[in-house]
Amino acid sequence: MTLFTGLSAFPLTPADDGGQLKPELLQRFLERIVAAGVDSIGLLGSTGGYAYLMPEERKRTLRAAVECVAGRTPLIVGVGALTTDVAENLARDARKAGADGLLLAPMSYQPLTNEEVFRHFEAVAAAGELPLCIYNNPSTTKFTFSPDLIARLAELPNVTAVKMPLPADGDCAGEMQRLRAVTPEGFAIGYSGDWGAKDALLAGGACWYSVVAGLLPEPALALTRAAQAGDAAEAERIDDAFAPLWALFREFGSFRVMFAMAEILGFGPITPPGPILALEPASRERVEVALRPPLQVAG
Amino acid sequence: MTLFTGLSAFPLTPADDGGQLKPELLQRFLERIVAAGVDSIGLLGSTGGYAYLMPEERKRTLRAAVECVAGRTPLIVGVGALTTDVAENLARDARKAGADGLLLAPMSYQPLTNEEVFRHFEAVAAAGELPLCIYNNPSTTKFTFSPDLIARLAELPNVTAVKMPLPADGDCAGEMQRLRAVTPEGFAIGYSGDWGAKDALLAGGACWYSVVAGLLPEPALALTRAAQAGDAAEAERIDDAFAPLWALFREFGSFRVMFAMAEILGFGPITPPGPILALEPASRERVEVALRPPLQVAG
Repeated sequence: MTLFTGLSAFPLTPADDGGQLKPELLQRFLERIVAAGVDSIGLLGSTGGYAYLMPEERKRTLRAAVECVAGRTPLIVGVGALTTDVAENLARDARKAGADGLLLAPMSYQPLTNEEVFRHFEAVAAAGELPLCIYNNPSTTKFTFSPDLIARLAELPNVTAVKMPLPADGDCAGEMQRLRAVTPEGFAIGYSGDWGAKDALLAGGACWYSVVAGLLPEPALALTRAAQAGDAAEAERIDDAFAPLWALFREFGSFRVMFAMAEILGFGPITPPGPILALEPASRERVEVALRPPLQVAG
Repeated sequence: MTLFTGLSAFPLTPADDGGQLKPELLQRFLERIVAAGVDSIGLLGSTGGYAYLMPEERKRTLRAAVECVAGRTPLIVGVGALTTDVAENLARDARKAGADGLLLAPMSYQPLTNEEVFRHFEAVAAAGELPLCIYNNPSTTKFTFSPDLIARLAELPNVTAVKMPLPADGDCAGEMQRLRAVTPEGFAIGYSGDWGAKDALLAGGACWYSVVAGLLPEPALALTRAAQAGDAAEAERIDDAFAPLWALFREFGSFRVMFAMAEILGFGPITPPGPILALEPASRERVEVALRPPLQVAG
């Protein structure tokens, strides 16, 4: 099994009002994830709010994570940035600090061309010298990867995986077949979008890059293992328990819901980075309800 | 005449490969703009690459600009950032450093709600205590302002103007009529999108937020003054001279074309911040041609 397979859990990065990491709380999230036995940790992904943290704070976050999980669970770290310089610097730092792999999203301000994204990935993958997963997340980066560009990137040294958004037509199997035809043997095609993870895994997706596993790693792992074993009925059963939460992820964005979940699960007051607002009390209550009977994780 | 009226010229922020400002070159751009007699300078706008610079570099850029233009041309500075903290900090710094006004774009990673954008603007406008223009630039921020949200923001202290993108239907007059109906008397509605500036100004737009005026302030000012005087024929004549350049702005994005223009105009080697690539030689040659016969600014 390679680095970018199975269940990858994406923790929040807890910070105070001034944007300073709360390392102890991060380590509590990580301990829970490690204890569940997930396949990897996706530190400083979109859920980890990498886009909202200064480079120095991201480096500090990585060190706090390595201190906690090194030798126990493989650590993948997001190194995306608006400039190539900063992303290269973060990629070099990630290797130095002891990360196992990189996630790279083409963050953008001016819309990027395919050639710009290719050269950016080429530079960052070379700087990092670690296995790198293409972080294909059009809803946040506003960049859409064509299959041709993924194929081109998959030929670069170190680029060994892609994290895909759920296809608009829901047909993960068809999409993977098309991508496998143009990427090297062993290139790992995984999915994000928690509400479609069950179908993506049952269709043969290599990895579930999971937001919810950042806080609820156990049921997420049970779903993953059932789907990997081809037990569709059990995977459906667990996915059904998550359904009310998936509905809230889609309504409010999983990032906002995860902050509410962390509080509900007893991790104390933790707020998203402004301008992102915490959920209103009425919406927060709906999160509490979604966690209760089906998942039985909140009182 | 208030701050956000007439012609606002948006200079590039020249930096070396490591992202460090070249202050002398910035000041050469600014001298040219001041000498032309434009109404204001839009420092660190999208053309000024604010999104690609670290906060400290932005503060340094503002100081280099103030040193050059203070007391000569009003200085508006972009303070947009992915977090409210950073934008507030930049807004406070802008006032301290001597800026005359602020531009605020709702940069985003997680897509923002209307309420999040409202609270963000409320916080930054309060921190800055300077006249603030809503920087409505959906192609880079991926946030679309509704007329209702603009109306709500226009009630906030310090929020006195909006910089609109060209309307999809081309009807600036109709759009302004609808916005004037919901915004306070004196709220200034201006436009960006250089290829539509002539029409926007002739329709009564308060301001042209101009990319091209960052390097070619004289013809841009002539166009502005003709349109302000209602001389449609003269405005059309100058706009026609710009037409080949507008076509390139639309094809490659004005940001990339401006870097080529700066070199062609003799400002020496200057490259966009990676991942943005300089134009290919063949495209750069087309820029040179566009500057030659119609605008007569390049040999």
